[in-house]
Amino acid sequence: MMMMDQAVGLAAVTVLGVLEQAYFSLQVIYARRKYSVSPPTTAGPPEFERVFRAQANCSEYFPIFITVLWTAGVFFSEGLSSVCGLLYLYGRFRYFHGYSQSAQGRVYLNVDLLQVVGSALDLV
Amino acid sequence: MMMMDQAVGLAAVTVLGVLEQAYFSLQVIYARRKYSVSPPTTAGPPEFERVFRAQANCSEYFPIFITVLWTAGVFFSEGLSSVCGLLYLYGRFRYFHGYSQSAQGRVYLNVDLLQVVGSALDLV
Amino acid sequence: MMMMDQAVGLAAVTVLGVLEQAYFSLQVIYARRKYSVSPPTTAGPPEFERVFRAQANCSEYFPIFITVLWTAGVFFSEGLSSVCGLLYLYGRFRYFHGYSQSAQGRVYLNVDLLQVVGSALDLV
Repeated sequence: MMMMDQAVGLAAVTVLGVLEQAYFSLQVIYARRKYSVSPPTTAGPPEFERVFRAQANCSEYFPIFITVLWTAGVFFSEGLSSVCGLLYLYGRFRYFHGYSQSAQGRVYLNVDLLQVVGSALDLV
Repeated sequence: MMMMDQAVGLAAVTVLGVLEQAYFSLQVIYARRKYSVSPPTTAGPPEFERVFRAQANCSEYFPIFITVLWTAGVFFSEGLSSVCGLLYLYGRFRYFHGYSQSAQGRVYLNVDLLQVVGSALDLV
Repeated sequence: MMMMDQAVGLAAVTVLGVLEQAYFSLQVIYARRKYSVSPPTTAGPPEFERVFRAQANCSEYFPIFITVLWTAGVFFSEGLSSVCGLLYLYGRFRYFHGYSQSAQGRVYLNVDLLQVVGSALDLV
């Protein structure tokens, strides 16, 4: 079993992921105020719905991300898993802002993420 | 690495959290029957939508809660993390019932939660 | 604390669960294309909404599933927890396809899942 100090990288990426989710949630709160969409309503102008869906998508993938991060980190390589985790969080950040601006933005940024991962693999 | 019996507190809070989520899910099922909103529809009278959104919000935060509970418990203090976890679950319970009654209820209960945390910190 | 090789069963079920979630997400993407429902919209013909809700429900329960799988596996029995996890994943697969076909399908398949669990307990 890995020692606790070996898991510090995974724990750091985990905390960063939690902070990112908190940031996305705040953006939804700001969008609710900006476009006057009070809870429990989730329908509104497309600008609001894009922010809302971007956050919902990121939230849906958050438990999968944490699960894969720790399973890969504990059973394979902590370092590689932490680095891929950081790239994922960066990709989600770009995805969120791309999606907030336009529905097409979320697709292009997935391509962008693939390029980042590709470049990272070139470096390895 | 912490021993298994040191993690019993975290595991107990985890099980309690799972039971709470099951309870919230049951409330949505009851609300679907009461207000005749059959799946897959999620739109309905505001009374139903508040229960639905309250459950959706709690579900969205559940993985974040579990992640923070275990990360803080393993890397910092198991006792403090378990106690904060219990307060969080109590806060979610109040939030759920407040939100079910009125959309404003969810806000006041967040303030209420802060007061509980504040009082708890006074005791420490 | 359990050794890493004792947790391999739990990890395998976890990876299978992640792949199943990826499969469900792909079905939503296909349904979006088939019924021409572009993001961020989530409302559409009932055929689309059933696939969308089936995936949303499975995603909502995924963190609860992972939490229960590992808590039961680490603190009680890894073997029993892994087997129940596999049954759960099979049940979710049936649920998803039942729900995609009709809203009633999801209910009957829950009964179906209970029968599978019942038969499994008979075998034990």
